[in-house]
Amino acid sequence: MAHVFWDDAGVTRGDGIFETLLIRSGEPMNLDKHVARFRRSAEALDLPDPGVDHWIRATRQAVEDYYRERGEAEGERSEAKCVWTMTRGRESTGVPTAWLTVRPIDETIVRQRETGVKALSSPRGYTIAHGENEVPWLNVGAKSLNYTASMAALRWAKSRGADEVIYVDSADGRVLEATTSSVIVVRKDKKLRTPAPGPDIVAGTTQRAIFEHADALGYRCKAKDLYLEDLFAAESVWLVSAVRQAVRVTELDGRPLAATPEGEREFRALVCAALD
Amino acid sequence: MAHVFWDDAGVTRGDGIFETLLIRSGEPMNLDKHVARFRRSAEALDLPDPGVDHWIRATRQAVEDYYRERGEAEGERSEAKCVWTMTRGRESTGVPTAWLTVRPIDETIVRQRETGVKALSSPRGYTIAHGENEVPWLNVGAKSLNYTASMAALRWAKSRGADEVIYVDSADGRVLEATTSSVIVVRKDKKLRTPAPGPDIVAGTTQRAIFEHADALGYRCKAKDLYLEDLFAAESVWLVSAVRQAVRVTELDGRPLAATPEGEREFRALVCAALD
Repeated sequence: MAHVFWDDAGVTRGDGIFETLLIRSGEPMNLDKHVARFRRSAEALDLPDPGVDHWIRATRQAVEDYYRERGEAEGERSEAKCVWTMTRGRESTGVPTAWLTVRPIDETIVRQRETGVKALSSPRGYTIAHGENEVPWLNVGAKSLNYTASMAALRWAKSRGADEVIYVDSADGRVLEATTSSVIVVRKDKKLRTPAPGPDIVAGTTQRAIFEHADALGYRCKAKDLYLEDLFAAESVWLVSAVRQAVRVTELDGRPLAATPEGEREFRALVCAALD
Repeated sequence: MAHVFWDDAGVTRGDGIFETLLIRSGEPMNLDKHVARFRRSAEALDLPDPGVDHWIRATRQAVEDYYRERGEAEGERSEAKCVWTMTRGRESTGVPTAWLTVRPIDETIVRQRETGVKALSSPRGYTIAHGENEVPWLNVGAKSLNYTASMAALRWAKSRGADEVIYVDSADGRVLEATTSSVIVVRKDKKLRTPAPGPDIVAGTTQRAIFEHADALGYRCKAKDLYLEDLFAAESVWLVSAVRQAVRVTELDGRPLAATPEGEREFRALVCAALD
């Protein structure tokens, strides 16, 4: 399917949800976690349960078509990304619209996996209310199609010679997440840290897969509050997401973030294995 | 045009802007103010200037087609709404996508013009930062396609037997706006009040047209802070927007809001004349 109707709520209101999956060797990685989050996002936005089986079947079929069209035989299949989208549907029908796409990984992402990224820290510019001013419908934890602010933040970073923005809480300085990825900090003695997910922080499927795998290997993994000084003091700082996997932050707010080649290799190997 | 490409930033990120115009007797109402706001929204989101002339030409042409298809001759043309949309465009081309549609006014809106609406007040659930934590890219004042939160707020209101949500500032209790309309309060002695536009409040084209017209007729019109008690104390409270024109709030948080039939008629006549 190449088109969406112009009166679709996804177009007119950004009213829908999505998941982005990595396809490696023709297989969707980390499938269970993506399915679980997709369903949680739907629930958070009062959309019907997207279900499971037909998404998996459709993904496998679209992936087969994709590699056949590119003439890539089994064993030589390049990585790809698969995006699932479900919206509230057309105004004229009210039936949710759902589709998925399989595409090559963006060249920028491929390059950033090698070179890392320069990041700027910034407040988000808005604060989600907790407690008495909390509203029941504001589910920033859901992966909705409302990414205008993040896209604008990225343009701002690029205009200043950086690649990414790492959001920090304006009240207490906590590190939150990057525009479309989770932050992981590697500390001495095989310790991994990430900010705990919440209304301000999307629960990362890739971050979770990494922590589960690392735990099993004897790393000590914790979701806990992190501050910019923790990032500067770390062995290495990473942005992780399905498609980028792990991209190292090489510079933060103009200050270089060091990492040893062995440390880098070790973390990359961990991520690679965690997603299998 | 009936479709949008699935890789359009309007679909994948809600990254675009829109304006909704009322078509009355085959003419777009309040055209200058919509053009001006559309251009301001584009600027706020770093989109290219959408220009003016081709939007006006395209609108007139689409309107003619619409009435011809419906077989409505001049002099008997029903009201319609025209929506302009411009997005950042397809990922694969980067060229902005623009289109417009002309459609009948929703029946709910037509009914609400007669019956009014029951509204609930609520905080937005988030606060836009001002001052030192303000970020340069967060332009909530722009009419972007990110309306997931407002749509969710409306569903919440409906689940409680109401029709609309009037947002109030969680810190100081100021009345902000409704989900897709501006609030106007009519006070004794021909005074009209509306909350001043800002980062939390979209500048309303209809509100402004009403104030300009009313000013010329000797009303005293002011944009100033309003609180819920001002709404309860008013002669009447209205939600105004291009398509709904003026819808009276008949009940707020379960308490009836009175209005005299003469007062209602007078304000409706004012709105009708202001948009001509």
